[in-house]
Amino acid sequence: MSPVTDPSSGTHAGQRTAGGGDGQTPVTAADVAALVGGRLLGDGTVVLRGVAALDRADATQLSFLSHARYASWFVTSRAGAVVMGPQFETADGAPRTRIIVDKPMDAMVSLLVRFHRHEPRATGVHPTAVVADTATIGAGVTIDPHAVIGEDVVIGDGCWIGANATVGAGSTLGRDVRLHANATVYPFTELGDRVVLHSGARVGREGFGFVPQAAGLVRIPHAGRCVLEHDVEIGANSCVDRGSVDDTIIGAGTKIDNLVQIGHNVRMGRMCVCAAQVGVAGSARIEDGVQLGGQAGIGGHLTVGARATVAGQAGVFGDVPAGEVWSGYPARPHKEQLRAQAALARLARLIRPLEQLLRKEQDS
Amino acid sequence: MSPVTDPSSGTHAGQRTAGGGDGQTPVTAADVAALVGGRLLGDGTVVLRGVAALDRADATQLSFLSHARYASWFVTSRAGAVVMGPQFETADGAPRTRIIVDKPMDAMVSLLVRFHRHEPRATGVHPTAVVADTATIGAGVTIDPHAVIGEDVVIGDGCWIGANATVGAGSTLGRDVRLHANATVYPFTELGDRVVLHSGARVGREGFGFVPQAAGLVRIPHAGRCVLEHDVEIGANSCVDRGSVDDTIIGAGTKIDNLVQIGHNVRMGRMCVCAAQVGVAGSARIEDGVQLGGQAGIGGHLTVGARATVAGQAGVFGDVPAGEVWSGYPARPHKEQLRAQAALARLARLIRPLEQLLRKEQDS
Amino acid sequence: MSPVTDPSSGTHAGQRTAGGGDGQTPVTAADVAALVGGRLLGDGTVVLRGVAALDRADATQLSFLSHARYASWFVTSRAGAVVMGPQFETADGAPRTRIIVDKPMDAMVSLLVRFHRHEPRATGVHPTAVVADTATIGAGVTIDPHAVIGEDVVIGDGCWIGANATVGAGSTLGRDVRLHANATVYPFTELGDRVVLHSGARVGREGFGFVPQAAGLVRIPHAGRCVLEHDVEIGANSCVDRGSVDDTIIGAGTKIDNLVQIGHNVRMGRMCVCAAQVGVAGSARIEDGVQLGGQAGIGGHLTVGARATVAGQAGVFGDVPAGEVWSGYPARPHKEQLRAQAALARLARLIRPLEQLLRKEQDS
Repeated sequence: MSPVTDPSSGTHAGQRTAGGGDGQTPVTAADVAALVGGRLLGDGTVVLRGVAALDRADATQLSFLSHARYASWFVTSRAGAVVMGPQFETADGAPRTRIIVDKPMDAMVSLLVRFHRHEPRATGVHPTAVVADTATIGAGVTIDPHAVIGEDVVIGDGCWIGANATVGAGSTLGRDVRLHANATVYPFTELGDRVVLHSGARVGREGFGFVPQAAGLVRIPHAGRCVLEHDVEIGANSCVDRGSVDDTIIGAGTKIDNLVQIGHNVRMGRMCVCAAQVGVAGSARIEDGVQLGGQAGIGGHLTVGARATVAGQAGVFGDVPAGEVWSGYPARPHKEQLRAQAALARLARLIRPLEQLLRKEQDS
Repeated sequence: MSPVTDPSSGTHAGQRTAGGGDGQTPVTAADVAALVGGRLLGDGTVVLRGVAALDRADATQLSFLSHARYASWFVTSRAGAVVMGPQFETADGAPRTRIIVDKPMDAMVSLLVRFHRHEPRATGVHPTAVVADTATIGAGVTIDPHAVIGEDVVIGDGCWIGANATVGAGSTLGRDVRLHANATVYPFTELGDRVVLHSGARVGREGFGFVPQAAGLVRIPHAGRCVLEHDVEIGANSCVDRGSVDDTIIGAGTKIDNLVQIGHNVRMGRMCVCAAQVGVAGSARIEDGVQLGGQAGIGGHLTVGARATVAGQAGVFGDVPAGEVWSGYPARPHKEQLRAQAALARLARLIRPLEQLLRKEQDS
Repeated sequence: MSPVTDPSSGTHAGQRTAGGGDGQTPVTAADVAALVGGRLLGDGTVVLRGVAALDRADATQLSFLSHARYASWFVTSRAGAVVMGPQFETADGAPRTRIIVDKPMDAMVSLLVRFHRHEPRATGVHPTAVVADTATIGAGVTIDPHAVIGEDVVIGDGCWIGANATVGAGSTLGRDVRLHANATVYPFTELGDRVVLHSGARVGREGFGFVPQAAGLVRIPHAGRCVLEHDVEIGANSCVDRGSVDDTIIGAGTKIDNLVQIGHNVRMGRMCVCAAQVGVAGSARIEDGVQLGGQAGIGGHLTVGARATVAGQAGVFGDVPAGEVWSGYPARPHKEQLRAQAALARLARLIRPLEQLLRKEQDS
């Protein structure tokens, strides 16, 4: 089968934003050195089209060496150029083009923007998108194929709604919101400016609350909303339920990774960071600047105080005071956790002499 | 860009069900008191349009005070009226309109249905939906934009299939089933009456079973079905796999929260409650009325007896007897778990004196 | 409402592949015995249309008996025929038609392919699919309704793209790739031959990395790709992020179950098996043939050596040597874990005598 014609109109797919989809912008090694304020050794004319780790990079790729444990990879690396700390400047290694900086990782992060390809963005509403006639669509909005926008929805200027995404009736999106493909905004949800929902994120579902009655488990109606404040990012396939007797709120600037569950009535503060697969049960309060490690679980109605850190896989069954680091199951202050583990190890070594001692006592 | 025309026909988007999408129904404080059989203090003419917690409610919202720990919020609350227990009747607090009831939380839950907005529901099949000509569609069915219904599918009366949802070939849906946007029913799946699948739920996938062969890991064919009995609810982004040598069955009335995994051949009983991020491995049996806490894991081929409770994050590696409460890793009866933790704490305090005692013994 | 007409063209929905959707192929008990090289007892003309466990099978279904714990189910089973080990040959039980084999489970697995119904597959591109005119589509490709294929995408021969699935700009799919309904391939992702993405799988999302700056948490650009090698299978609602400074790679033949999270820059080897709800944090290396149990978590930048096994719910905070079996939190070699648990149990029994002994010492 030969290439298939795109039925979309020119206004949607015909225009691309600058830099879209046309490959990564090549730079020379000399450019790289200038960009990061580094010292160039070797051939500054080497052309670089991407980045990769030392053991996978080829002659068109930039790599980096920041830690001695990767020095052995450097020996045989085929990278076109390597950003590295001064301690490796004279190290044995195939790559002759070297850019010396004090902080190789920071330099790499600043370079990534040069090698990052942007997804091409069309303008306007694709003709296959279904937009309710009661919806209000701002200026400069992109709505990709097959997206569905419900009644009375308000979409702010500059938003980009991905393919097959859905926005339920009565929801409001601020400016420059990005819904990736296949994301779902349930009805009556509020998203601030620059909110990002990754693919498969589900926000605004009625939470999980049932009352046992004669007819079975009857759902508690949810009258609260799901509110995502400015600059919130929700990872792929993560869920934020709406509130029952109050709103569920995710504070401005908070970033949530993939496959995370946020229950109903939760209030999460500003600038929190929530790693993948975390679960926060209903009505919990997560204050500003909290960090939750991967797969951690926070029980219902608890409070995690401002700037506290909860370690990966921790199971939190009580309030966590502000600023503390907690870990383990059941979670407690991380230092106590370490002490308890050390105590257990010491005790294990005492078992045999203690049993002997007790026998001796009994005999005497 | 100005609002965009909806290409949908009048039969789909032109008719709304009663109460849909037109805002929450306002009630007066006197109405509220009458509805919950409460005693009204203050101004009964206050108009209430929603609910919120004490610290967030405004003059148009109803709030509630059920526990002393929220009494400090009451002092400065701007709520239009507050449902409260008799012990707070004369408490200091800004809200003068108070409705006194014995059980404030129960009263609020019964009021929520008045403040809950229903998603507007169109009638009929949206013209952008794709329905196989071999599918059978019952009376009063709504199929939203871009939904895809496969060959030989049977959809019972009153079902509502959300936008971008897909129903695979040969599947059967009972009456009044609700698939939310972007949900997936794999082929050959059976859903009873009033089943609810939230956005991103995936039911009927072939389970995870591979046989190592010379060519690599070869998938075991799955000949069993995925059967969801009447009144089952599956949360957002949860997965229920179909069976290999038997059906996977979720019993009538069971409610499953978000991001839950139910493996192949699992039999879950009636009226179970399964919190978010639970995982149940293949061929496990969960009997009637079991409660599984968030992030708990149940190993393959195990049985959790009727009305047992498994606590959050528990790791179950053996059968759980009926009616028991288990917790921890590896899971065991909750009382034993608490006793073991207490024992460890006592032991930790004994380490130093015991080490001294042993040294003394050795010296003597 | 009566059945609805399918707007799809004959080229898409009009042709079915052999065996599609028309019910399971019936076989006789004699056929079954011949297929598995078993010894037939009873009536070989019994017609079997499916498989089920002993307690659920009816007279048209084949069942199996492989373990004494299910012998009580055999007594009253209504199965049409039963595949069983020789030790049950003369067991009391209703089913008279018995097929005796040495390994009943292996025999059943080999029979499943006969009872497995294939989803019907149309040919060609459904007219509602949106395919960019810069995309290249191979021979024999199926693209189901409402799928969206972005600019510059390359889709190899024989691929099957499910309903409402999306493939982002610049991505490449090898031959015979299967995307199930509602799956998402983010832009610039590379899939090898025969890769399977189940419904709701999200591959190629920019990973979770933010740098705190004055303006808030600023996203690290991701210049690495997400690469799934040949024969990789990704479960429903699982996520594999693309790399930041390197590619994320899942090695050939690796199978990943539902709701799994694979972070950015992870390199997973060949022929690994990853159970449901596992989380692998950024830059971890999982070598060839590793097995990760359900809900296990692997910390960032760690290495799990070749053919190692990590047990369910384990929390791995350090490198796991090749070939070892680790479990628990924090994870350590499984034998040590068991020894530590046994030690704790022994210690718990010593508490009281030790406390008495210490009191006696103090008194003396």
